[in-house]
Amino acid sequence: MAKKAMVYIQSGGPTSVINSSLYGAIKEAQLHEDVISHIYGSLHGIEGLLCDELIDLGKEDPETIELLKQTPGSILGTSRHKLPKDYHDKEYQAIIETLKKHNIGYVFVNGGNDSMDTCFKLSALCKELGLDIKVMGVPKTVDNDLAETDHSNGFGSAAKYIVNTVKEICIDASCYKRGKVFIIEIMGRNAGWLTAAVDVLPKGYRPDFIYLPENKFDVEKFLKDIKVKFDEKGFAIAAISEGITFERDESNVRIDSFGHKQLGGAATDLAKIVETKLDLPVRAIELSLPQRAYCFLTSKVDQDETIMCGRVAVQKAIEGMSGRMIAIKRISDHPYAVKYEPVDISKIANVERIVPQSMMKDDSHMAPSFSDYCLPLIQGEIEVKYENGIIKAAELKKVRV
Amino acid sequence: MAKKAMVYIQSGGPTSVINSSLYGAIKEAQLHEDVISHIYGSLHGIEGLLCDELIDLGKEDPETIELLKQTPGSILGTSRHKLPKDYHDKEYQAIIETLKKHNIGYVFVNGGNDSMDTCFKLSALCKELGLDIKVMGVPKTVDNDLAETDHSNGFGSAAKYIVNTVKEICIDASCYKRGKVFIIEIMGRNAGWLTAAVDVLPKGYRPDFIYLPENKFDVEKFLKDIKVKFDEKGFAIAAISEGITFERDESNVRIDSFGHKQLGGAATDLAKIVETKLDLPVRAIELSLPQRAYCFLTSKVDQDETIMCGRVAVQKAIEGMSGRMIAIKRISDHPYAVKYEPVDISKIANVERIVPQSMMKDDSHMAPSFSDYCLPLIQGEIEVKYENGIIKAAELKKVRV
Repeated sequence: MAKKAMVYIQSGGPTSVINSSLYGAIKEAQLHEDVISHIYGSLHGIEGLLCDELIDLGKEDPETIELLKQTPGSILGTSRHKLPKDYHDKEYQAIIETLKKHNIGYVFVNGGNDSMDTCFKLSALCKELGLDIKVMGVPKTVDNDLAETDHSNGFGSAAKYIVNTVKEICIDASCYKRGKVFIIEIMGRNAGWLTAAVDVLPKGYRPDFIYLPENKFDVEKFLKDIKVKFDEKGFAIAAISEGITFERDESNVRIDSFGHKQLGGAATDLAKIVETKLDLPVRAIELSLPQRAYCFLTSKVDQDETIMCGRVAVQKAIEGMSGRMIAIKRISDHPYAVKYEPVDISKIANVERIVPQSMMKDDSHMAPSFSDYCLPLIQGEIEVKYENGIIKAAELKKVRV
Repeated sequence: MAKKAMVYIQSGGPTSVINSSLYGAIKEAQLHEDVISHIYGSLHGIEGLLCDELIDLGKEDPETIELLKQTPGSILGTSRHKLPKDYHDKEYQAIIETLKKHNIGYVFVNGGNDSMDTCFKLSALCKELGLDIKVMGVPKTVDNDLAETDHSNGFGSAAKYIVNTVKEICIDASCYKRGKVFIIEIMGRNAGWLTAAVDVLPKGYRPDFIYLPENKFDVEKFLKDIKVKFDEKGFAIAAISEGITFERDESNVRIDSFGHKQLGGAATDLAKIVETKLDLPVRAIELSLPQRAYCFLTSKVDQDETIMCGRVAVQKAIEGMSGRMIAIKRISDHPYAVKYEPVDISKIANVERIVPQSMMKDDSHMAPSFSDYCLPLIQGEIEVKYENGIIKAAELKKVRV
């Protein structure tokens, strides 16, 4: 088999383990030097292939590669660029030119739903053109909304961050005889997985109410429930998904390049309603960017699985597979065990998997089956390397190809 | 010497090491059983003494006491109650009654400026009444604005959390070719110590601009600087103190029981100005409550010093001292070394120590002397105990006296 280069693309929003997938792919590729000639990285997602901006990851120090496991953000850069619907468009031609120019035989796209669409189109085009280029997807999204996989790489770590941070907030919130209403806003546009995660906290450290975008949000019922809880214990805590909808001022809302509304601010808007209608002290807390960028609370289970997904993607591409994403299939809950299975990307692209009603007790509490699902995913801690009290991060030399 | 009980009061907003002071005081008191008959905790700050609500900390398990070092919030509860100005008021009489009833000879008040005022009045009253009750202050505030001490217990850990979290945000922010303007809001009403802390980050991971409440905030200059930086590198990051002032809608601002304005929302308001005036994508991130409640990024230096302050307060009270707070005096920067010195509380109560101009290079950057000051305070990591992927926290039995 003639040696060919591989290129790795990081796409969409980062997660705290996005660079762990890359780590896994690099480590696996290094075991196959007889097949893989070079390990390239595409700068700024698909834009790197569009504009022929690639770097040689083989030129990086081993220490840098190790540090990938505790480096947030997309180390190769990412992009919000959405490829045209028609994959005969000239943008795809430009990508194919870059792939041919560098003798690339393996393409890995690490991303969420939108990115899997890119991956799907690219693999279809290569097939149509009769090119011997394998295109594989590596799952990534804190939102956990990818179809055909038990969970997504990045979810477990974001959930672990959220669970632990919300526990700290709950403890802080309970210090006063007469405290406040706390409204904690958690990432999740249409899928409430991350918000639901707080349900795994033991009683006494758990928000009183959990509101997911999967359910209709009833402001009147919310206010009534909050009031009862506040009167009962002197404070009340609600966890809400940023995507819950209620009547609010949307005049300032912006739309991103994928046509999605920019979110955030739901907790603040809801806090104003609580203040006006209930006249209670209230504090809105948006967990914000650290949810996806926090390497201190990376879940070891998530990181190990993420590395494996990167590895398996490389293995399967070498075996000749294309147009598949590496999915995680759960074999059992007790003990928790998974296997890795390639699934057809066309089943995943642009599909959103939301929290099923079977995992909810009612519109503001989870059923026990949710904890069974979620708790294994936040297990284990990673050892973090510091320098002068500050977490170390990988810095690439970025040697251009 | 007749044995007497001690009572410990946690006051004001919690810090991530507030319970480490208590740990230190308990461990020290246990060494002096010949002098200290009982170790009591006052529930909900000064309210516990006002309403005779005390618990016996001697009844707690050693494991619980150990866990205090990784438990956020005020484990004894805290209070926003402000004692009357006149210390002949009946509220003070009620406190004295409680002290007498339980044969208390030692009172420890762990808090910030407002709490040191409580401490000062109480010690003055005991002296005036000829009571053999020693009242000692233990410094605590993430804001670092206590006078007469090099720094306050809790500042180093909050700073370590902020420094590391902002590094993660800076990495995430730099992933896109064309990113956003990020405005990170950090705690600090009149003193910008916590915001300034981000200056210790290495270049490339440091916000471009740092705005402290000590300086006049010039919106026009801010917008100009942000625009230049964004055009230069495709994103821009500003760290602001919640206390910076500029023209904004303050119709919703509430006032707390100490007469302070409730803060928060400065970044959001400033983001709106950036959006309107510069038409750039912008994201406001308020670090919020986790700044003071995060036990994962506790500074070992801060924790060790905090425990020592609790210990020394007990030692000095036993020696007969009263009306003093245990201050930290820095002996040298390289190597970093401190000593603990009791200082007259009248010099501390209600005084705010702000960041000196000598530590600033200009109105949006720090001078090198600031790093020399701050960096030693965020050194060292603590080992955190988890259970099922979730941080463990102390739970008191709270046996009433």
